[in-house]
Amino acid sequence: MYSVDLNSDMGESFGAYKLGGDAEIIQYVTTANVACGWHAGDPMVMDRVVGMAKERGVMVGAHPGYPDLMGFGRRKMVLSYQEVKNYVKYQIGALAAFTKSYGMKLQHVAPHGAMGNQCQYDEEISSAIVEAITDFDKDLIVYYCAGAVLGQIAESKGLRTASEIFADRAYMDDLSLVPRKMEGSMITDEDVAIARCIRMIKEGKVTALSGKELDIKGDTLCVHGDGPKALAFVQRIRKAFAEEGIEIKHL
Amino acid sequence: MYSVDLNSDMGESFGAYKLGGDAEIIQYVTTANVACGWHAGDPMVMDRVVGMAKERGVMVGAHPGYPDLMGFGRRKMVLSYQEVKNYVKYQIGALAAFTKSYGMKLQHVAPHGAMGNQCQYDEEISSAIVEAITDFDKDLIVYYCAGAVLGQIAESKGLRTASEIFADRAYMDDLSLVPRKMEGSMITDEDVAIARCIRMIKEGKVTALSGKELDIKGDTLCVHGDGPKALAFVQRIRKAFAEEGIEIKHL
Amino acid sequence: MYSVDLNSDMGESFGAYKLGGDAEIIQYVTTANVACGWHAGDPMVMDRVVGMAKERGVMVGAHPGYPDLMGFGRRKMVLSYQEVKNYVKYQIGALAAFTKSYGMKLQHVAPHGAMGNQCQYDEEISSAIVEAITDFDKDLIVYYCAGAVLGQIAESKGLRTASEIFADRAYMDDLSLVPRKMEGSMITDEDVAIARCIRMIKEGKVTALSGKELDIKGDTLCVHGDGPKALAFVQRIRKAFAEEGIEIKHL
Amino acid sequence: MYSVDLNSDMGESFGAYKLGGDAEIIQYVTTANVACGWHAGDPMVMDRVVGMAKERGVMVGAHPGYPDLMGFGRRKMVLSYQEVKNYVKYQIGALAAFTKSYGMKLQHVAPHGAMGNQCQYDEEISSAIVEAITDFDKDLIVYYCAGAVLGQIAESKGLRTASEIFADRAYMDDLSLVPRKMEGSMITDEDVAIARCIRMIKEGKVTALSGKELDIKGDTLCVHGDGPKALAFVQRIRKAFAEEGIEIKHL
Repeated sequence: MYSVDLNSDMGESFGAYKLGGDAEIIQYVTTANVACGWHAGDPMVMDRVVGMAKERGVMVGAHPGYPDLMGFGRRKMVLSYQEVKNYVKYQIGALAAFTKSYGMKLQHVAPHGAMGNQCQYDEEISSAIVEAITDFDKDLIVYYCAGAVLGQIAESKGLRTASEIFADRAYMDDLSLVPRKMEGSMITDEDVAIARCIRMIKEGKVTALSGKELDIKGDTLCVHGDGPKALAFVQRIRKAFAEEGIEIKHL
Repeated sequence: MYSVDLNSDMGESFGAYKLGGDAEIIQYVTTANVACGWHAGDPMVMDRVVGMAKERGVMVGAHPGYPDLMGFGRRKMVLSYQEVKNYVKYQIGALAAFTKSYGMKLQHVAPHGAMGNQCQYDEEISSAIVEAITDFDKDLIVYYCAGAVLGQIAESKGLRTASEIFADRAYMDDLSLVPRKMEGSMITDEDVAIARCIRMIKEGKVTALSGKELDIKGDTLCVHGDGPKALAFVQRIRKAFAEEGIEIKHL
Repeated sequence: MYSVDLNSDMGESFGAYKLGGDAEIIQYVTTANVACGWHAGDPMVMDRVVGMAKERGVMVGAHPGYPDLMGFGRRKMVLSYQEVKNYVKYQIGALAAFTKSYGMKLQHVAPHGAMGNQCQYDEEISSAIVEAITDFDKDLIVYYCAGAVLGQIAESKGLRTASEIFADRAYMDDLSLVPRKMEGSMITDEDVAIARCIRMIKEGKVTALSGKELDIKGDTLCVHGDGPKALAFVQRIRKAFAEEGIEIKHL
Repeated sequence: MYSVDLNSDMGESFGAYKLGGDAEIIQYVTTANVACGWHAGDPMVMDRVVGMAKERGVMVGAHPGYPDLMGFGRRKMVLSYQEVKNYVKYQIGALAAFTKSYGMKLQHVAPHGAMGNQCQYDEEISSAIVEAITDFDKDLIVYYCAGAVLGQIAESKGLRTASEIFADRAYMDDLSLVPRKMEGSMITDEDVAIARCIRMIKEGKVTALSGKELDIKGDTLCVHGDGPKALAFVQRIRKAFAEEGIEIKHL
């Protein structure tokens, strides 16, 4: 029997600014990566989305990012080891106050945006994140993009991990995501996208942009919730997984 | 036997900006109110000051404030009940990540600046703070300025409280602090200040600016650590208290 | 011959956050109030909206607000005279860099949100804003809500002013807007709203929520651009004004 | 006759945070680089320092930086060309509102911290800054670190430039500053530092850390104002320059 976790980034609204369809997508996923007020999100938003997760039985994880609201955490910043460690720790703690209030346990940590991308190869940043998590709670699961050094470092420190895959993104030969600016970066054909997901989960294989066959581990699949098209796609995924005997459940 | 807690606001530096003499004052107090990154402080500063507190055996509490770094949290903002509740909860959680990392327990919450001032009379803000604390951890002690409605509301909800007094500030007839702009707001004569402290702690009495005798409860005394004069004053207080049989110890 | 300026708040997006339909509403107005990066907006957004205004021949004014992005500048903050003056001056200057780049002249200043609301009665805040404007450029027009003390103070200092009216808001007896929480605050019937606008412009009269007849001056009418309904309403207004012989043109 | 401009970074305080001795150093320099509220500074600080400059006859320039108050603009951020251009333009405009208020003309632009460092080699960032300046005011002088590509690009676009040298920093063979972490990065012997300055200004030569002789152009010398030692050093420089027939005057 195969199984996979379905996660989505949530809580990315800020003040008067609404981003993403949290109330809709939460009906279809098993896990929420919740922004912690630095690159997105604020305490009102965090309270709301954690409350919704509680109601729906959805697991909650922290989605920490760089201190760059104007850039949505997507711009690389050169921070020291200590800065990354303490910034991540701060954000985890802030979100944990809300899960605690709802009688929930924070389940995982998934670095956002530029910080997340740097975890593909950057051992210093990855180690800083792992130390922040270890300091806070050794039971937290570390979500990492398939192939990222973050996963290896987390495991070497005895933490549980989850390898994240994407339905709509193409892969380079080294399992890094094809940059959005490159042609072919997005898997736009939904049938192809779903077939790729099923293969990643069942066979642990995916075809890179170059045509090369790659090994890949898919513990958790990231889906998006912005717009009716995204929601319809998630519903299709759920249906297809059911037909293929892939159970959707949290870790 | 009399006893009193000595607290000081700490962790108010931010990035390249240094404020206050944390490393010095921490040698003389039993409790630190640590800024949480909104009106002052940042994760690097929080980590540093909590680490120092751990080393010195000093208790740590959260010192949450308004989202107004430019105004150091001293400017009144009109926020809703939910905003106050969630903003305070966020800040408590963020700081608790650092105490947890050092194997310490967060001891208390002491609202800062304009937020703290509003707790003298504002039942809505006080209730919002109390709810945030209750949601997070019912064992946290609520620090309130002597006479503040915050104390009554916290007690009515079953929380432990500590009534805070000031060595260098004069009192109005209603126990609110004489505004800094008014003449006589500061007790500048150190002998007078110390005698007042001793009387507040031993007799539970203080003379208001008007000359009226007031009842006052002094569980914790706030001292400052900026500048050599402030440090010398704290040392004088400690000596005087020892002579008067007032033990200085945390709650 | 009657005439009126049609203005709309624009440039309220921020980073990845989109707010309002700037590209649509700009086709129907004569003047844009552009957020300056404090309560909303950022330099990328400011550049974009000023560029659109240049292309469309739309006048640009500064829409300064409180330093409260999380509250969208809608929460009252208690600032000093000097703070209001310097904060407004900073924002005007920042926006003027963009109008200058496009070879345009900044036309006016219209305080936003809570700052704007306080200009109804608060002489200190109004004077601070007027001094900031006078310091920067005596040719700037001061937009004020009909009846606001800001208008009187600006005129007493020799500045040009424009009295702003609203199509969709009911008035109290003192010309202040009926608070949004009160019943009857919004004029939801579009025919009524348009008839009220025409009467305000042609006769200088409006009926308060209480039924009382009030004198009102309508130099500029504020319209909204968020959503298809708002756009359709602006188009109806334009048509109705044409039929009534009210020319829509900037000041 | 030789001459040099003496500049110092000022206006780096923020809210309750005081940084640097603006009121002291301004007595000894001819030019101030004023922070614009992004990496440091706020409108109150900007108003104060520009007012002091007016009183002292000191020229004022903008000192724009990255949107990173927590990192004091010293951390590299990966921004797009348009972002750099618009961020710099915003900050120049904001400061210009204060010089305008005091009847002064903004004299120059000197990029701060990480942004300034990147101007040594990064043509894209340098071009973005030059375009922002050109859009705003072609008469502004571009301050660049001796050898930086920013200078060449500014000159190629017809802007006036000033090559900045440092009294207390050692140079690599390519005229970039020796990174602070490297041994020998600081010229700690004051006599050596002053002799180097005189040689840079009179002969256009400096000895690199490696011992290699380099050509260097010194139009403006950067001095610091934090602490009594820094002030005493500036006074020594002024005396030495007077003896050497180097006139200290703004550009």
